[in-house]
Amino acid sequence: MPPEIQHHCGLFGIYGDPDAVEKTYYALYAQQHRGQESAGICSSDGQEIDRYVGMGLVTEVFDRQRLELVRNPIAIGHVRYSTTGSSAHVNIQPLLVTYSRGQMAIAHNGNLINAKLLRDSYEDAGAIFQTTSDTEVIVHLMAKPDHIKHHDTLAHVLRHLQGAFSLLFLFPDRVVAARDPYGVRPLSLGMTAQGAPVVASETCAFDIIDAQYVRDVQPGEIVTLDRKGISSHYFVEPSECRPGHCIFEHVYFADPASSIFSENVHIVRSAMGRQLAREAPTDADVVIPVPNCARCASMGYAKQSTVPPGRGFTTSHYAGRSFIMPSQGQRDLAVKMKLNVIKEAVRGKRLVVIEDSVVRGTTTRGKMGALRAAGAKEIHLRVASPPIRHPCFYGIDFPDPNELVANQCGSVEAIREYLEVDSLHYLSLEGMLSCVRFAPDHYCTACFSGHYPISVDEPVTKFALERHQLRMFE
Amino acid sequence: MPPEIQHHCGLFGIYGDPDAVEKTYYALYAQQHRGQESAGICSSDGQEIDRYVGMGLVTEVFDRQRLELVRNPIAIGHVRYSTTGSSAHVNIQPLLVTYSRGQMAIAHNGNLINAKLLRDSYEDAGAIFQTTSDTEVIVHLMAKPDHIKHHDTLAHVLRHLQGAFSLLFLFPDRVVAARDPYGVRPLSLGMTAQGAPVVASETCAFDIIDAQYVRDVQPGEIVTLDRKGISSHYFVEPSECRPGHCIFEHVYFADPASSIFSENVHIVRSAMGRQLAREAPTDADVVIPVPNCARCASMGYAKQSTVPPGRGFTTSHYAGRSFIMPSQGQRDLAVKMKLNVIKEAVRGKRLVVIEDSVVRGTTTRGKMGALRAAGAKEIHLRVASPPIRHPCFYGIDFPDPNELVANQCGSVEAIREYLEVDSLHYLSLEGMLSCVRFAPDHYCTACFSGHYPISVDEPVTKFALERHQLRMFE
Amino acid sequence: MPPEIQHHCGLFGIYGDPDAVEKTYYALYAQQHRGQESAGICSSDGQEIDRYVGMGLVTEVFDRQRLELVRNPIAIGHVRYSTTGSSAHVNIQPLLVTYSRGQMAIAHNGNLINAKLLRDSYEDAGAIFQTTSDTEVIVHLMAKPDHIKHHDTLAHVLRHLQGAFSLLFLFPDRVVAARDPYGVRPLSLGMTAQGAPVVASETCAFDIIDAQYVRDVQPGEIVTLDRKGISSHYFVEPSECRPGHCIFEHVYFADPASSIFSENVHIVRSAMGRQLAREAPTDADVVIPVPNCARCASMGYAKQSTVPPGRGFTTSHYAGRSFIMPSQGQRDLAVKMKLNVIKEAVRGKRLVVIEDSVVRGTTTRGKMGALRAAGAKEIHLRVASPPIRHPCFYGIDFPDPNELVANQCGSVEAIREYLEVDSLHYLSLEGMLSCVRFAPDHYCTACFSGHYPISVDEPVTKFALERHQLRMFE
Amino acid sequence: MPPEIQHHCGLFGIYGDPDAVEKTYYALYAQQHRGQESAGICSSDGQEIDRYVGMGLVTEVFDRQRLELVRNPIAIGHVRYSTTGSSAHVNIQPLLVTYSRGQMAIAHNGNLINAKLLRDSYEDAGAIFQTTSDTEVIVHLMAKPDHIKHHDTLAHVLRHLQGAFSLLFLFPDRVVAARDPYGVRPLSLGMTAQGAPVVASETCAFDIIDAQYVRDVQPGEIVTLDRKGISSHYFVEPSECRPGHCIFEHVYFADPASSIFSENVHIVRSAMGRQLAREAPTDADVVIPVPNCARCASMGYAKQSTVPPGRGFTTSHYAGRSFIMPSQGQRDLAVKMKLNVIKEAVRGKRLVVIEDSVVRGTTTRGKMGALRAAGAKEIHLRVASPPIRHPCFYGIDFPDPNELVANQCGSVEAIREYLEVDSLHYLSLEGMLSCVRFAPDHYCTACFSGHYPISVDEPVTKFALERHQLRMFE
Repeated sequence: MPPEIQHHCGLFGIYGDPDAVEKTYYALYAQQHRGQESAGICSSDGQEIDRYVGMGLVTEVFDRQRLELVRNPIAIGHVRYSTTGSSAHVNIQPLLVTYSRGQMAIAHNGNLINAKLLRDSYEDAGAIFQTTSDTEVIVHLMAKPDHIKHHDTLAHVLRHLQGAFSLLFLFPDRVVAARDPYGVRPLSLGMTAQGAPVVASETCAFDIIDAQYVRDVQPGEIVTLDRKGISSHYFVEPSECRPGHCIFEHVYFADPASSIFSENVHIVRSAMGRQLAREAPTDADVVIPVPNCARCASMGYAKQSTVPPGRGFTTSHYAGRSFIMPSQGQRDLAVKMKLNVIKEAVRGKRLVVIEDSVVRGTTTRGKMGALRAAGAKEIHLRVASPPIRHPCFYGIDFPDPNELVANQCGSVEAIREYLEVDSLHYLSLEGMLSCVRFAPDHYCTACFSGHYPISVDEPVTKFALERHQLRMFE
Repeated sequence: MPPEIQHHCGLFGIYGDPDAVEKTYYALYAQQHRGQESAGICSSDGQEIDRYVGMGLVTEVFDRQRLELVRNPIAIGHVRYSTTGSSAHVNIQPLLVTYSRGQMAIAHNGNLINAKLLRDSYEDAGAIFQTTSDTEVIVHLMAKPDHIKHHDTLAHVLRHLQGAFSLLFLFPDRVVAARDPYGVRPLSLGMTAQGAPVVASETCAFDIIDAQYVRDVQPGEIVTLDRKGISSHYFVEPSECRPGHCIFEHVYFADPASSIFSENVHIVRSAMGRQLAREAPTDADVVIPVPNCARCASMGYAKQSTVPPGRGFTTSHYAGRSFIMPSQGQRDLAVKMKLNVIKEAVRGKRLVVIEDSVVRGTTTRGKMGALRAAGAKEIHLRVASPPIRHPCFYGIDFPDPNELVANQCGSVEAIREYLEVDSLHYLSLEGMLSCVRFAPDHYCTACFSGHYPISVDEPVTKFALERHQLRMFE
Repeated sequence: MPPEIQHHCGLFGIYGDPDAVEKTYYALYAQQHRGQESAGICSSDGQEIDRYVGMGLVTEVFDRQRLELVRNPIAIGHVRYSTTGSSAHVNIQPLLVTYSRGQMAIAHNGNLINAKLLRDSYEDAGAIFQTTSDTEVIVHLMAKPDHIKHHDTLAHVLRHLQGAFSLLFLFPDRVVAARDPYGVRPLSLGMTAQGAPVVASETCAFDIIDAQYVRDVQPGEIVTLDRKGISSHYFVEPSECRPGHCIFEHVYFADPASSIFSENVHIVRSAMGRQLAREAPTDADVVIPVPNCARCASMGYAKQSTVPPGRGFTTSHYAGRSFIMPSQGQRDLAVKMKLNVIKEAVRGKRLVVIEDSVVRGTTTRGKMGALRAAGAKEIHLRVASPPIRHPCFYGIDFPDPNELVANQCGSVEAIREYLEVDSLHYLSLEGMLSCVRFAPDHYCTACFSGHYPISVDEPVTKFALERHQLRMFE
Repeated sequence: MPPEIQHHCGLFGIYGDPDAVEKTYYALYAQQHRGQESAGICSSDGQEIDRYVGMGLVTEVFDRQRLELVRNPIAIGHVRYSTTGSSAHVNIQPLLVTYSRGQMAIAHNGNLINAKLLRDSYEDAGAIFQTTSDTEVIVHLMAKPDHIKHHDTLAHVLRHLQGAFSLLFLFPDRVVAARDPYGVRPLSLGMTAQGAPVVASETCAFDIIDAQYVRDVQPGEIVTLDRKGISSHYFVEPSECRPGHCIFEHVYFADPASSIFSENVHIVRSAMGRQLAREAPTDADVVIPVPNCARCASMGYAKQSTVPPGRGFTTSHYAGRSFIMPSQGQRDLAVKMKLNVIKEAVRGKRLVVIEDSVVRGTTTRGKMGALRAAGAKEIHLRVASPPIRHPCFYGIDFPDPNELVANQCGSVEAIREYLEVDSLHYLSLEGMLSCVRFAPDHYCTACFSGHYPISVDEPVTKFALERHQLRMFE
């Protein structure tokens, strides 16, 4: 599934640690799965902010010797999903700007619904934009004299933003974290062994630097990390916040070792696998995951069912930057560069194959074909989430709804025919929601259900903006 | 375990395919696990040989546009294990030389026991050497006028070599494959969909280019791929060959999707896991593999026992080229860059942890410590092979015997204490050998048993040579 | 002298040529002497603007294969002088932004005196800045709604700018060139063999692409290149423009093959050399130039005097990216990496040495020392311009006035002592001005005379801004 | 002329200096004009030799940080001329090998006439070759047991070599320099300020490291630099050596600041220019050199004649690695990337243009065309050496004799027509030889006169060898 969905973004911030920049480097590395296109670190010595960013993986962007020179004790970092085009360099985050109050850096995970509207209005007022990112709107809002006049500029500005946002700001003397009133994207607070406060999209970032998870940044909350320690207030009263956590973070995005929305991802996925076994039991010889994402769900399925777990694929550990030469069949080879079927493990077998989710369906179809070619007798595909049918306006870059296999085929039976499997079952919406801790209405299930917790006034906004962006920069 | 053993080498050859160079590229990529230090392709248009080699991963060494320019229909390729030092470039294979008969390229997997002796003798006769590789001795032997006079120079030369060798030669008009009389390292023949003969260390190289496995190159056999097709003869009569296949290829080296020594690696490893469960059953809550190598054995163990399978670690997909900054604790971080414990999956649990093998023990110890720190209640380590106590003279670069944990600690109980686990069991030698197809005396188990199928006249040879090499090139 | 003065910037624009991007590449290459830190090309297909920029020399920034893909017929390009610091990437020009009217790219040669004032005022109004360049102020001015309302926004904006500016704008459908009312920096119009209009800082850019010089863009003029051809109007009436051409362009900056301010640089420099010989004749054996800049003046001097011309130095053709190792004496080696004395040509000779100008004096001193060490009997230094004593506010990055040798030493005799030469003469201000075509008051001689044609309201402005920049980005 | 002749090689060696590797780096940099394709340094700590080589310019091959790690006090270095092809990496010098006596590195400037013969004979005896360079033959000769038996192996081997060779050997404990009995290529001894002996192809290498020239290595001499200081003996008695110094080193190759064959290059070239003025006086307005090579000769010409010196071209300081896009006229642009005509300096003028030599003539023709296009009234080309008509077998890579303009056109009048100039004169052979210190028969003038001081038994040898090389490696 990875080739079909672009991941989005990962954040990290730290205040008051002599190795702040190094720890940011490792924390971004641990969150690399949240964004592979670019990486950046802004850090401060308390007075001035340094920016070090680049296109590529964390290990490609940062040079050890240069990184060692930046000994600043305050830092924020960002990894970003993949786009194309030579101009993409301008969009690398954290974004660093100067305004009337001095310097400000910003890192954003999520998507603003009203960015286009705000941007148009600012352009009309004479503003110039150098990126195509919705994040640049936020710095314009922060810099507006009317807003600066407010005793709490940030709270004032955040109340104007519509959509999903986990945000980190770096001012020369502090790090500020904020999360939208719906808590769509995860954001957690932690503490290093030395007592420096940290903030990250996922708790796996804490593990690599030996920090302990403390609590989540709450929906509607602003948390400031500065010399006075951690202080907090709300830009939207907790009583007015209605959680809408992205269930797809649990289904696919987050690392299994992370805890998000107050529970561990691996545990949730295993439960989804067990629930899937209850909803769609199968008489078969072996349960195999589509690597690597569905391994957690696959184990849950096997444990709940009577079918023993097995392994059908090997995966390449070196898939990073391979290229495919034109004379070869492109799609098949792309799949083969990433995995290989263990023929002897599937030949003549009746397989239960577990996928975490199916987006376009082309990659899944390729993998099913490979299993068939290796001699699988029966293939029973079980998907540990419901069919994806709707766009995400809150930060996940699904393909156009028309390209989703669930919309293209319509019925599950039609999808089954397209994927050329013997049977196909998706986990039900209710079943999926039964596997997480909070009440069903505390999650955003829009991509599955079409129910959008944050009203989308102009449903075409996103596409108009994207088209605008394409016109501008490709 | 990977950081403790350097992999060795992988080979590929193809004759008469318009995309021979491309297919060699993909076949090397699929065998990347056999060597990450350097990669090279020599190819011929029927008259002249072109050499394209470099330090690094296959995807780093070869440039797509440059590779497309080399449209030669005959090729051999090589991936090589990691060493250090600036001079290593001279050792990249295939090696290409000119001698009285014209050009010859050679690629080698294995290790020659009598290389030092032969090299000394050649140097005394006036030969000059430009590499520190034992392979260079072979080309000197091939070029010797006395040997050229022989009607079958290659057979004559191969009979003089002692040790393990799977070899590929590229002459301008043909590819020649040969395997030592013990068949220590794997070497298989295949056929592309278009009918071109191919040869590879592992069959996973065939899968990626849509070639079919035909048969193994036999111990003592010379196979020639040329315009007349495939022809074969023996430099040592089959009746005089005594197979001594490296059992460690099944335990650790080879890809689970490959078939070597006539059976699939995944199937063998699963059987080893099952046998381990029979020999060392455990009362526990969950079976988890030490990623990623022990996944096959772990499934076998769980299937045979009553303990359900689970997952205790996540692994980084981006571990390739990370660096570690000096201010961090080096070893712990090195482990953390590669994997992370899923705390919620191990906390309070009684774990059966499956390792494929234990070499120095330091990495295993680190992983066990990480499980303990995450709250594991009990850790029962089960190793799907016997203790490693002896050096390999046939091509696997184990550390010095003194550095092997089994020798340092002596008894299994002492190893258990060192690894700080609640119980420890290794698979027995007999148990391991019961999981493979051929009779026990058809395998080399020297690293476990100390029984060397090929007599090692000067047991210090290897180290002397290595010390010699160090003196020369570091 | 080159190591002591940072060059400034070079511009090029072209409209309606199928090879517009390639020609921009060559035209920037030909103007590389005007800026070595970064290079950039913005080009348009008539609707959208593509930006391709990078740090380094023109030949380093642009990749041939990628450049070939950009087939846009409208383009502007920029080379920029050297600064330091990792953040410098944001300052690369052309700058590309989006505002209410769409896209706009800008390239600037010169320096705005009131940039700090305008920037402060814009920041107070809520603007955010992403670069530390004065150029960003211009795009804010262009985007301001009050200015957009004007029927001629650009003219309106340009009338607000104080200082030196040769500007190129790229809008999706046109190139616009403008020059300040003083014409401080050069800017010329030309025509390719195929009839496409071009504009460049120096005419040497026309030579390399086989374009013909047409005329200079006039002080106060706005020239538009679009589908209707070339059109022109004035934002300041010609009658109100008082030319103040930078005489230092003739003395040092411009390429000898270029014509600027209506006359050829080589011819002017030769005349300065002849005038220098009239003002400061010398009884000596040979006239040698300090390479390479003073070759034109040196020939003029020799021709006018009775002293024969000669050669005292060789220069490295490979000096580009050399590094100097710490154990060596830094400054001496830096000089030696660039030139070498021909000992046999100077030994025992009475030398007239011609410099174009002397800034800090350290490099000149080093060269004189090398001549002395090689056995020169007498060294008579003749400088083909007056002493530099004052800062430039119009785009040349001289060191701090306190670091200028003429200020440090005071009298010419004191400078002579510092440089350790037998005699020293500078060209007089009147003598220098007698070598150019227009009346003396048509040139800016501020760095020599302290007379500033454009009033500098806050003489400290520049340094305040620079300090501000340092605070922000270093 | 540079694009038409490939330079050859430059050497440097040093014994017993703590900064030996650094000084080798600078000394190679100073001799970069002798070879731009590859560079290499072999250094020793007294016991083991380290090799650090690469393709490209000195500044590209060596990384400062890595170079600093090699603190060996004994070193030799080599820069090599340009060839093409991916296999060229194997030919980079110094070559480092192991033989029965241990390690040996070798660096060679020149060309062996009997290399093919020796190579064939060695291959017949079973030797293998890994390079296509004639230098590899020398190491085979050195390693031969029969030769090692000799009490002075090196002298014995050198007596077998036919052709031109300035050689440096590095053994772990010493540097050995040797020069063929004809002294074809230059080789000089010097002494650093700290008293370490050095050896270099050209004395400009001494200047950059503050070493003093001591004397030339004599034809037929072997000089050893070791802990006992400098010792010398002859492999051919001085009385039997007949000097045949390459006059083309003075005409074109060597740096003007260097002294070779006991006199300064600039002084010799100036004398050639004066002699040319005597032989071919011209009534004209200005004398201009074809940049940059002919500047010395041009000054000599002007001084001797009544025509004043001038400047007609500017040259790019950034010409290094430019590329030319296919849509542009290749040859014209290649010339324009390197130089530009100062139109105002040549328009309407009668020019005397000085070239140092003319090889193929195409580049010269292009430059003459550019002068004509700029409006030159008359062009009188004066070449400061005779017509080149014969191949060099001693190390200069002239094009095939059929491609030399002097052979293609035949008469000087025909060449004049081809070059499209108003008059053309070459310096006479006698005139050229009158400008150097030693008797005419002490110089090799083969490329001009066809008289070869070292008999070339198989005049086709070189081409056979080259064809052989092409077959092997392209």
